Amino acid sequence: MSLSADTPSIRQDIIDAVADGFERQTEFLADFTRIPSTRGQEDPALDFMAKALKERHWDVDDWTVPTTALRDQPGFCDCNGEVTHIRSVVGTLDSGTGNGRSLILQGHLDVVPEGPHEMWATPPYDPQIRDGWMYGRGAGDMKAGKVAALFAVDALRRAGHAPAGRVHYHSVVEEESSGLGALSTLARGYRADCAFIPEPTGLGLVRAQVGAIWFRLKVRGRPAHVAYAGTGSSAITAAMHLINALQDMESDWNAEAANHPYYRDVAHPLNFNAGMIRGGDWTSSLPAWCDVDCRMGLLPGDDVNARRAQIVETVEKAAANHPFLRDTPPEIEWTGFMADGYALENADAPEAALARAHAAATGEAKPEDQSWTALTDTRFYGLYHGIPSLCYGPEADSIHGFDEKVNLASMQRCTEVIALFIADWCGLRQIGG
Amino acid sequence: MSLSADTPSIRQDIIDAVADGFERQTEFLADFTRIPSTRGQEDPALDFMAKALKERHWDVDDWTVPTTALRDQPGFCDCNGEVTHIRSVVGTLDSGTGNGRSLILQGHLDVVPEGPHEMWATPPYDPQIRDGWMYGRGAGDMKAGKVAALFAVDALRRAGHAPAGRVHYHSVVEEESSGLGALSTLARGYRADCAFIPEPTGLGLVRAQVGAIWFRLKVRGRPAHVAYAGTGSSAITAAMHLINALQDMESDWNAEAANHPYYRDVAHPLNFNAGMIRGGDWTSSLPAWCDVDCRMGLLPGDDVNARRAQIVETVEKAAANHPFLRDTPPEIEWTGFMADGYALENADAPEAALARAHAAATGEAKPEDQSWTALTDTRFYGLYHGIPSLCYGPEADSIHGFDEKVNLASMQRCTEVIALFIADWCGLRQIGG
Repeated sequence: MSLSADTPSIRQDIIDAVADGFERQTEFLADFTRIPSTRGQEDPALDFMAKALKERHWDVDDWTVPTTALRDQPGFCDCNGEVTHIRSVVGTLDSGTGNGRSLILQGHLDVVPEGPHEMWATPPYDPQIRDGWMYGRGAGDMKAGKVAALFAVDALRRAGHAPAGRVHYHSVVEEESSGLGALSTLARGYRADCAFIPEPTGLGLVRAQVGAIWFRLKVRGRPAHVAYAGTGSSAITAAMHLINALQDMESDWNAEAANHPYYRDVAHPLNFNAGMIRGGDWTSSLPAWCDVDCRMGLLPGDDVNARRAQIVETVEKAAANHPFLRDTPPEIEWTGFMADGYALENADAPEAALARAHAAATGEAKPEDQSWTALTDTRFYGLYHGIPSLCYGPEADSIHGFDEKVNLASMQRCTEVIALFIADWCGLRQIGG
Repeated sequence: MSLSADTPSIRQDIIDAVADGFERQTEFLADFTRIPSTRGQEDPALDFMAKALKERHWDVDDWTVPTTALRDQPGFCDCNGEVTHIRSVVGTLDSGTGNGRSLILQGHLDVVPEGPHEMWATPPYDPQIRDGWMYGRGAGDMKAGKVAALFAVDALRRAGHAPAGRVHYHSVVEEESSGLGALSTLARGYRADCAFIPEPTGLGLVRAQVGAIWFRLKVRGRPAHVAYAGTGSSAITAAMHLINALQDMESDWNAEAANHPYYRDVAHPLNFNAGMIRGGDWTSSLPAWCDVDCRMGLLPGDDVNARRAQIVETVEKAAANHPFLRDTPPEIEWTGFMADGYALENADAPEAALARAHAAATGEAKPEDQSWTALTDTRFYGLYHGIPSLCYGPEADSIHGFDEKVNLASMQRCTEVIALFIADWCGLRQIGG
C-alpha cells in the first residue's frame, strides 16, 4: 500500500522521528568523521558504510573494478594512471511492489587532505562540537549529508514507513579528484528516476555548477651551481612564468563568463589554482625540476576538450616566450578531473517534490537557487544518463580549509527534508510493527 | 735533513712519481665518487678517507662534536638546528724535527644532491671516463682535488721524500651548506702556516670569493576550496610575490658590486637562488603553506649581519604590500650559510711557492687570478685565524649540475703542483729506502 506524504500528520511523524534519532545520528557522524578517508585511503570508510547498511538490512553491493574498465563511460578521465582501482558500496531497498518512483541517494566519502595539523584549532580527525557546529575534516564535505540521507530512511522506518519505490544508497570515492566513483556505479548499471546528492549547500539547490580540469606542469632543465646562474636555468622561476600566463588565461575566461545565463551575476566564477608545487633538491643548486599541480574551472556548456586545448596553447605560448622553456618545453600531465559543467534543467517533478519537502521542514516556499563555482557528481547522472540530479544539503563552512565545520541544526533540517522528499518522490508503504 | 725543491732533478722525480701513481689515483677517485656523500650521509666517505690515511701510516684523528659546541667560533651558523653533530677526520704527518713550514691540506667530501637520475647520461654514482673526463656527482666538487692532495704526498714518498714541516690532511663535511666541518677542525685546535684547498679552479687561484646567506621563507595561510578563492589566499602565489621582491633586491646588490675592487669586471657576481620549493596538499584546495629555500650571495667586505637585515627588510616590505601576507607575514628561518666573503691578501710567501710549483708543472708563470661567485672554506682560515688560504685545483664542469665531470689531465697537473708546493713550502726530508 502506498501512502501519501502530504498528510500533515504523516509529515509531523517523520519530523518527530528525525528528532528522536538525532542524538544517535550526531554520534554516527562523529564516528564517520574520525576516519581519515583521503584519496587512496577510503577503505575503512567504505567498510564503515557497508556495516551500517547491513545492520539496517539493506542489500549491500560492495565491489571493485579496475579503472581501465571504465574507460568507455562518458565523463571518464584516466587520472594519469595514478588510480588503478575503484571500490564502491551501494545499499538497496526494494519493496518489490513496482510502486513509486526510484531514487539514488548518492554521496562521496573521500575527503581532501587536512594540511598542517597545527593550523587547526582542534585535531581534524577528532571531531568536536562547539556552538552547534561539528568541526572536522570531511564533517561538512560531505559526511553530514551522507549521514543525513541514511538517517532519513531510518526515520521513515521509526515512523512506521518504508519507501515504496526502489532506493539506492551510494557510497563513492574519487569525487574530489575525478568522479570515477560515481562512474563505477553507473557502469555497474545503477539507474533511477532521480538522483539526490546531499553536498553542503546550506539548504539551497544547486542550479548550475562549473566543470574543472586538473593538470600537472612538469618543468625540467639543466641545473648548475648557482654561482653560474647564466649557464643553467631555474625550473622554479620557469614554472612561475607559466603560472602567470595561466592567471592571464583565467582572466580571459572569466570575462567570457560575464555573458553566461547562470554565471553572469557571479563574480569570478572560474578559478585557476596552483594547488601544489614541488621543485629543486638543494638551496645552492639551480633547480632542475619543478612540478605544479593545477586546477582550472570551466562553464556549463563549455566543451571540455576545447578548454583543454586552450590550456595547452597557453602553456605552449608562454614557453615559446621564455629563454629557458623555449628549448626545454614543459610537459603537461592530466592528473584528474576532465569534468563538464552541469545545469539542472527539465527536472520539474523532482524539483517540485523537493520544494514541498523543503517548505514543510523550513517554512520557506522553496530552496534558493545556487550557481556553484565548485563541482559535484551530479553531472554524470544529468548529462550522460538523463537522470535529473538534485544537489541539496546541510550548511558547512571552510570546506577544504582548516576548521571545516557543519551546522548540526542544518543537518537535522536536511534529514527532515530528505525523509519528506523520499516519502513524496518514492511514496510510502507501511511496515510491520 | 731538509732538501730544496728547486733542484730540477728533484722536481722531475716528483712529477714522474705522480705519473707512476696516476692509474691507481684514478681508480681511487672512482671508488671515492661511488660513495653518495650527500648532507647527513657522509659517514661512509669519512670511513673511506680514515682507512686510506691509516694504510698510509698517517696519524688519524676521527672525532665528532655536537654542533652547539661550536657556537662561539667565529663564522658559526646554526643551520636552524637541523644539523646536530659534526664528524671530521684529520690525518697528520709530523717529522718531529721542527723544520719546515706547516700546512693544512683541506677538502670537503660532502656533495650536493644529484637530482633526477634520468637527467644524467650515466648514473651519478657510477663514475665513468669519456674523452679524458671522469663523470659523476662530486667527481669535480671536490673529490678529484681531495684525491690529488692525498696522492701528492704519496708521490713525494715514492720519490724518496717526506714533508719536513708538519702536514695535516683534513676531510670535512658541511662545506656545501654551512662550513661547520671546517669550523670543527679549527675548534679542535688545528693550525698551520698555510691552508690549501684544492677546489676545482681549473688550475687558477681564487683571489676573491663571495659570501652567502641561506634562508627559508615559510608562508602560511588560510586555505579553502578553490571555488571560494576570494575567502582564502594562496600561499604559493604569495611565495612567488616574495621571490619577485628578492630578485629586485638581487639587482640592487649587483648594481653596488660594480664598484667592488675584485668584482667590478664580473657580470652579476651576486646570485639569488630559490633552490627548493614545496607547497600545498591538494590540487583543488587553495594552498595553505609554501616553503622556499633561498640562497643569496654577498661581497667580500660586506657585513653579513647587515646583509641579513636587508633580506629581512625586503621580505617584510614585500609582505606589507600584499593583501594576504600583510595579515599573515612569512617567517624566515636561517637554514645554513651565514658566510662572509673573503679575498686572499697578504699571502706573498705561499703565493710565490704556488707560482713556482704551477710554473714547474704547467710552464705558465703563475696561476690566473679568479674572483669567484661561489664560496669555499678558505674564509675560516684567512678571516678569523690569520692563516693565508690558497684555493687551487683541477678543472671541472657542471658542478652541482647533471653530468658533473672532472678533467683527468688537470687532476694530474694539480697533483704535481700540490706535491711541488709541499716540497717548496714544507721542505723535504729523505726517507729510508
